[in-house]
Amino acid sequence: MTKAELQAVLDNGRFHHFLRMEILSIDEEGKRVVLQLPYRPEYQRQADTGQIHGGIVSAFIDIAGTFAVVAVVGHGVPTINLRVDYLRAATATTLTATATVLRAGRTVAVVDIDLRDEQGRQVAVGRGTYGTQAA
Amino acid sequence: MTKAELQAVLDNGRFHHFLRMEILSIDEEGKRVVLQLPYRPEYQRQADTGQIHGGIVSAFIDIAGTFAVVAVVGHGVPTINLRVDYLRAATATTLTATATVLRAGRTVAVVDIDLRDEQGRQVAVGRGTYGTQAA
Amino acid sequence: MTKAELQAVLDNGRFHHFLRMEILSIDEEGKRVVLQLPYRPEYQRQADTGQIHGGIVSAFIDIAGTFAVVAVVGHGVPTINLRVDYLRAATATTLTATATVLRAGRTVAVVDIDLRDEQGRQVAVGRGTYGTQAA
Amino acid sequence: MTKAELQAVLDNGRFHHFLRMEILSIDEEGKRVVLQLPYRPEYQRQADTGQIHGGIVSAFIDIAGTFAVVAVVGHGVPTINLRVDYLRAATATTLTATATVLRAGRTVAVVDIDLRDEQGRQVAVGRGTYGTQAA
Repeated sequence: MTKAELQAVLDNGRFHHFLRMEILSIDEEGKRVVLQLPYRPEYQRQADTGQIHGGIVSAFIDIAGTFAVVAVVGHGVPTINLRVDYLRAATATTLTATATVLRAGRTVAVVDIDLRDEQGRQVAVGRGTYGTQAA
Repeated sequence: MTKAELQAVLDNGRFHHFLRMEILSIDEEGKRVVLQLPYRPEYQRQADTGQIHGGIVSAFIDIAGTFAVVAVVGHGVPTINLRVDYLRAATATTLTATATVLRAGRTVAVVDIDLRDEQGRQVAVGRGTYGTQAA
Repeated sequence: MTKAELQAVLDNGRFHHFLRMEILSIDEEGKRVVLQLPYRPEYQRQADTGQIHGGIVSAFIDIAGTFAVVAVVGHGVPTINLRVDYLRAATATTLTATATVLRAGRTVAVVDIDLRDEQGRQVAVGRGTYGTQAA
Repeated sequence: MTKAELQAVLDNGRFHHFLRMEILSIDEEGKRVVLQLPYRPEYQRQADTGQIHGGIVSAFIDIAGTFAVVAVVGHGVPTINLRVDYLRAATATTLTATATVLRAGRTVAVVDIDLRDEQGRQVAVGRGTYGTQAA
């Protein structure tokens, strides 16, 4: 899928009206997608702290992984499972997720997701398994 | 912590104004917490489908796990990592999360989270590691 | 598959000559398998400590999960991924693994594995995803 | 720790007499360790297939992750949890594990482990959480 097509899928999601992500790039061979999540106060754990809730982090990581697989297979895919490791707190920062497909097989794909803050520091890492068969 | 104290912590969170959870119960020995998430259209993947977004599922599971540990140790705790396995789609349903602390040690706790829809069907399972030391 | 058929598959494995497991039971609906691993000094981390190596624990958990799926689908299956959480050290003890299939779908199965020592204490828990399609 | 000291710890383990690993390198800042596991027929799933058992793969990944943390903190550490994703079968090949510490904090460390065959193909990836406090 092209960047414009993927962005249209993103914009069309209902939960995505809350989590307002932008697709930055899709690499040439379609195995890597970069998404950005600009900061909004609604994402905070506690008001006036700026600290982004872990649920926002994991949701963003899941979506980045999903879109990396969608870019490769060309249709919507289900998340089978996801592991997220939280490495440092993210405070009032745009988050950038880089999702790389390690393997896309006949039935499942495995994706690594790297999440960084505006200073380029690793905030969290994710690893997910996604279905690859059309529904 | 008591149910009222935990509910106050929940209500105080900023992201929790979007994800409106309710604590149903804390068992006598404080190792199990049950939370409920009533359905809202904002949680949908695509508008008018009723299907709840995976990011909502994983955020709710993470929070349930966190609160099980908080109930045991009596203070806020960080999520170290979380794995979520998605078992079936959840459509326009209240979700009930039961979080059980398998082990609470000096530095970390391990928690199992079981997520069910209104019909009692298992929607997803989570397993998380949380820090237990006071900040 | 019957218990005798599954035991024959176990006994036929080359690595299984080192890891000498025994199938204790397969429940009526085939969704749960119980395996036992009697202690051998070769499994120790350090000589003369009795402490069983984590690699033995995770290998045994993986095999128990595999066999639960094999019992359901009736043919060999690949492990897609596995998470193991270590809860307490196991010392010079027979280990008993109970593997329960949470979901067996068209392409993947999800299995929970509970590992206990002779005193019935939980030593580790595993959760694995396995392929279900015939090769 | 130096390479010779780590190799001595490896050689001293009882299970390691079966799983005969060699430390190839420790990088300058001690955050990355490379281990090698030469092929032996005892590692096979089924005799005469050459296919290395998944339990060998996960045990080797766990040990590589452990040693990366040991190299950083200078003492033995427990595995708290480990996720392994299997990407392709490994057949009659030496395996090389590269373990990189993503974060080493006061209580836990997070490590990524990359496992490759002699042709440099990715066989599996692991991600583990290890304790960092001295016993």
